[in-house]
Amino acid sequence: MTKRPRSGPRRDPLAHEAILSAARDLVAEVGYDQATVEAIAARAGVGKMTVYRWWPNKAAVVTEAVADRLAPPPVPDTGSVGEDALEYLRGLVRTLTLLGDPTVVAGALAERGEDGRMALRDILRDRFEPGTQLLRRGVERGELPADLPVAAIVESWAGYALYRIVFLQEEPSDTDLRELAGLLPVRS
Amino acid sequence: MTKRPRSGPRRDPLAHEAILSAARDLVAEVGYDQATVEAIAARAGVGKMTVYRWWPNKAAVVTEAVADRLAPPPVPDTGSVGEDALEYLRGLVRTLTLLGDPTVVAGALAERGEDGRMALRDILRDRFEPGTQLLRRGVERGELPADLPVAAIVESWAGYALYRIVFLQEEPSDTDLRELAGLLPVRS
Repeated sequence: MTKRPRSGPRRDPLAHEAILSAARDLVAEVGYDQATVEAIAARAGVGKMTVYRWWPNKAAVVTEAVADRLAPPPVPDTGSVGEDALEYLRGLVRTLTLLGDPTVVAGALAERGEDGRMALRDILRDRFEPGTQLLRRGVERGELPADLPVAAIVESWAGYALYRIVFLQEEPSDTDLRELAGLLPVRS
Repeated sequence: MTKRPRSGPRRDPLAHEAILSAARDLVAEVGYDQATVEAIAARAGVGKMTVYRWWPNKAAVVTEAVADRLAPPPVPDTGSVGEDALEYLRGLVRTLTLLGDPTVVAGALAERGEDGRMALRDILRDRFEPGTQLLRRGVERGELPADLPVAAIVESWAGYALYRIVFLQEEPSDTDLRELAGLLPVRS
């Protein structure tokens, strides 16, 4: 038996993909807490050390596994900032709901001082970026006041979606999203 | 050695308080993930089964342990709904920051299908209630429009605070809170 070189982190793309796929499936089936590195490795048909060769911990592998399913919402451009905001919020809800099991987000965050937590935060922040873009465009067009607190609004939207979907596990209705978008101080 | 009756869940208030205190301290020191039931029991000087006699799982004991520190923010009454909102948001940030380690919230939520998660959600919802009250008062006074989406605003405030404090671990500044409160459609 020859030893694999440790310097090549992606030398076996099939095993790599099998691990990500196993992580996704296990989290969906038993939740983040029960989806241990051992269980992920067993389902992927690899040894536990193979997982640790590529990821430092469970949070990192699960985060990478779910990242693909967290496609960034597009930047809507309907010509009206209110409609753009509504479209963006709908996309955000779809994206977060796609996680399937909100315990992934919470679980990755719960691991103290881990790379996985930072990675997840970066992924989420990235997904909230189109909101900033559509609000800035609304300001440029004169639909919204020049002193609009863009960051505060985007973070409150992000927080609203996370609170409803991850914390309360109550998906917002379209009426809820219309109310939220309707709070923008659009000039009539 | 005589067996303790199982029917009396709070028969030993000193041990009960020692466990809650141990849970609080351990979570603050090592984070939710590392604060196992075994470690909590050891620090409290009781057996692991004593913990399980009173709480079904780690999430339940940790949630009860931190609930005391999550005092509900008061309902401010400054005479101006904008100032009330700002005061409420300041109290909300203080309350959530008092958790000390945001991994408690995330960790309790990560446990799938557990009582602890429900308990934590109820506690958080309770803490967001004063926001509803101050907005309703603002509507009654005519400071805010009658069709104000009160629930959407309160949930976006709650989400904003959770997103900043628990997810990003970046405490909002007073300027941030002023911007958020300033988004209310107060009639001038």
